[in-house]
Amino acid sequence: MSKTPIIEVINFGDELLVGIRDNSHLVYLGDQLARYGLPIQRSRVITDEKTEIQRAFLDAWEHSDIVITTGGLGPTADDMTRENVAEALGAELLFDQSILDAIEARFKLLGRKVAKHHEKQCYYFSGGEVLHNERGTAPGLLLRRDGKILIMLPGPTQELRPMFEKQAIPILQEMGVLSKEQAYVQLRTCGVGESSVEESLQPIFSNHPGLTVAYCVHYGIVDVRLSSRDGSLSLGQIKEIAHEARELLGEDFVCYGHCSLADVVFHELRALDRTLAVAESCTGGLLCDAFTNIPGSSKVFVGGVVCYCNDVKVSKVGVPEPILEQHGAVSPECAIAMASGIAERLSADYGISVTGFAGPEGGDEKNPVGTIHIGYHSPVGVWAKTVRYTGGRMDVKTRAVHAALDWVRRKLRKYKIEEFLSCGAED
Amino acid sequence: MSKTPIIEVINFGDELLVGIRDNSHLVYLGDQLARYGLPIQRSRVITDEKTEIQRAFLDAWEHSDIVITTGGLGPTADDMTRENVAEALGAELLFDQSILDAIEARFKLLGRKVAKHHEKQCYYFSGGEVLHNERGTAPGLLLRRDGKILIMLPGPTQELRPMFEKQAIPILQEMGVLSKEQAYVQLRTCGVGESSVEESLQPIFSNHPGLTVAYCVHYGIVDVRLSSRDGSLSLGQIKEIAHEARELLGEDFVCYGHCSLADVVFHELRALDRTLAVAESCTGGLLCDAFTNIPGSSKVFVGGVVCYCNDVKVSKVGVPEPILEQHGAVSPECAIAMASGIAERLSADYGISVTGFAGPEGGDEKNPVGTIHIGYHSPVGVWAKTVRYTGGRMDVKTRAVHAALDWVRRKLRKYKIEEFLSCGAED
Repeated sequence: MSKTPIIEVINFGDELLVGIRDNSHLVYLGDQLARYGLPIQRSRVITDEKTEIQRAFLDAWEHSDIVITTGGLGPTADDMTRENVAEALGAELLFDQSILDAIEARFKLLGRKVAKHHEKQCYYFSGGEVLHNERGTAPGLLLRRDGKILIMLPGPTQELRPMFEKQAIPILQEMGVLSKEQAYVQLRTCGVGESSVEESLQPIFSNHPGLTVAYCVHYGIVDVRLSSRDGSLSLGQIKEIAHEARELLGEDFVCYGHCSLADVVFHELRALDRTLAVAESCTGGLLCDAFTNIPGSSKVFVGGVVCYCNDVKVSKVGVPEPILEQHGAVSPECAIAMASGIAERLSADYGISVTGFAGPEGGDEKNPVGTIHIGYHSPVGVWAKTVRYTGGRMDVKTRAVHAALDWVRRKLRKYKIEEFLSCGAED
Repeated sequence: MSKTPIIEVINFGDELLVGIRDNSHLVYLGDQLARYGLPIQRSRVITDEKTEIQRAFLDAWEHSDIVITTGGLGPTADDMTRENVAEALGAELLFDQSILDAIEARFKLLGRKVAKHHEKQCYYFSGGEVLHNERGTAPGLLLRRDGKILIMLPGPTQELRPMFEKQAIPILQEMGVLSKEQAYVQLRTCGVGESSVEESLQPIFSNHPGLTVAYCVHYGIVDVRLSSRDGSLSLGQIKEIAHEARELLGEDFVCYGHCSLADVVFHELRALDRTLAVAESCTGGLLCDAFTNIPGSSKVFVGGVVCYCNDVKVSKVGVPEPILEQHGAVSPECAIAMASGIAERLSADYGISVTGFAGPEGGDEKNPVGTIHIGYHSPVGVWAKTVRYTGGRMDVKTRAVHAALDWVRRKLRKYKIEEFLSCGAED
């Protein structure tokens, strides 16, 4: 096999093509393989039709070194992937009594009986290996042939994942196809556009021709993932480049790895042993949700009020009525009153607030749809900030939550000597 | 073009292959196209490399009638899809000054200046059409050639979607490739497992050999999508089958189409001209968020309190301290006190509450991790209900929100003569 094998994934399943569900297998396999230094080169999704399966499989087998398939191994009549691939490859399928025995043993525990149609799951490629399925009936299949590797995995997520991690990855590591340690570093940034991040980091990255850089933008967050597709840079070298990049990013750098913005704020406040309360209007619970997604968040997050109407802003958050009369509910003044009010009412050290027009209706000349005011109350002062976004209601909500968290993160860092340095790069 | 054209989607982008993000474009396009009767036949994801782009594109162009690409049209140096596809096709690219003018006008509003690299976005295929981008700089491209259609869409979601819906779909409808009305009917159910739904509907479905049935399960919701892949059933016939199925589902039927559970509850309460308040602990804002995702939700949804710690449950929601002392915060008694308390404090007609252990920590013998108590306060009485889920923290939160909304939906329907019948099937 060549030094950097080309890896291709084929997902079988109509439901992936008609808008019913995400191809989560591809995300999962991509993440797993990238972690060990072998990004997927290409992937395809096809329907469960014989000619389609055979054409796609043979094309993949011709142009790639490792082919991983998902789905189509079940007991029903539609599940013909095993048979179709065997025919395309000209490979013989052999019956394995021990697979049937395992299915029988599994079913006995569940009080079920093996049906005739389960027998088709007991065939494997002559000369190939069987990947045991600890969570279901369909075993996976592995075949080495023509200097290439074929791995066929069952469709259900809870069956595919342990099989891949416990059996396929170790085999691929053993063969030297995957590295034994993690192979990339991700820098998370927020508050600056993709092109600005790219522009500011380009001088560093252009010095390293073996570096592979991937950007991913999601609602104001820009992730920069560094790896070495051709294997010319070691993980140590990639980490050094990441640290250089991080210096250059300054306070736009959020963390290494995958921590959420709420995680970062949570850790900052946890380190200070301080508490936080939230008052939100247009983001309608999403900011509270971001904190409560963190296990143990109650150590920092006291609670929040979703004050969708003005009465609640006054009665539950403590916004003075004159503020609403003079400035309106969508104003920096109201944002500050909300942040201070909620901190006081819930006896928290810090308060964050969001008020604005998420759309599609509402808005006025001064504050068009997409205008968001963020309020921040802290022991050292109160501030408000205004941002403006285009897009649909849910986009605006998500971006507003990210903007609020990012701003608080920056404010909190200004008062700390040591920067936040956990999350990812070292694990 | 043949009667049923073969449609293929090519998504360009390394980030789709290394586990960074879902291929949401494929889900979106699959959904949109299936709605109008043309399911995607196959799709592939490939990296932004010239040889890869050209090989994949030519293979797709040879075997499919309509090729839709996403991504790679941006201004940066990596974004070479336009150029690579043009070269593979042997098509000429022409400069269009009006595209540059549009970018300049857009940037002027944003206070930015057009850079040299934006000029590459101003090229289109000779003989082709330009799809205007109302949300960004990169226009889409359309080319009809060799009896085939090529549609190239920009990568950012908020740019791709309006372009596809407002420009590409009408063109494809005009050409007779897509039907002018929706081609499938979806029944949404909640509160019963996929296999139960399948079992109860099978007697109806088995009478119709031309019927295509797809199930999709998400956090307690089971969607049943009915279509006729072979075209043997008309939309009218499919609707008739759907109505039969709906009768059989009884109160497990939520709606036709894609309405969220919160939408359904919102519409029920709107029809009654009643208001609602929320108090939530372990779901941490997600229930409020579900309501505030609905445009105009303030007509029904007054507000909510995320009462993560007991102090807030007492002081802001009005839970009597003896309830917490005697029964604990995770109890049906507390759920009821929260629902009634929040309705009273926020002057709402209805109150919903959620309290429980979302995990991974917490829980006790009586209420293990995953135990959720839902409280419901209405003008006709108060109730509590307990559910239990396994899974990660975020799964449990989402399922708990769905369980609360589904329960309220069922309760509200019991007091109405007319059933809720909007959302989808008839539009």
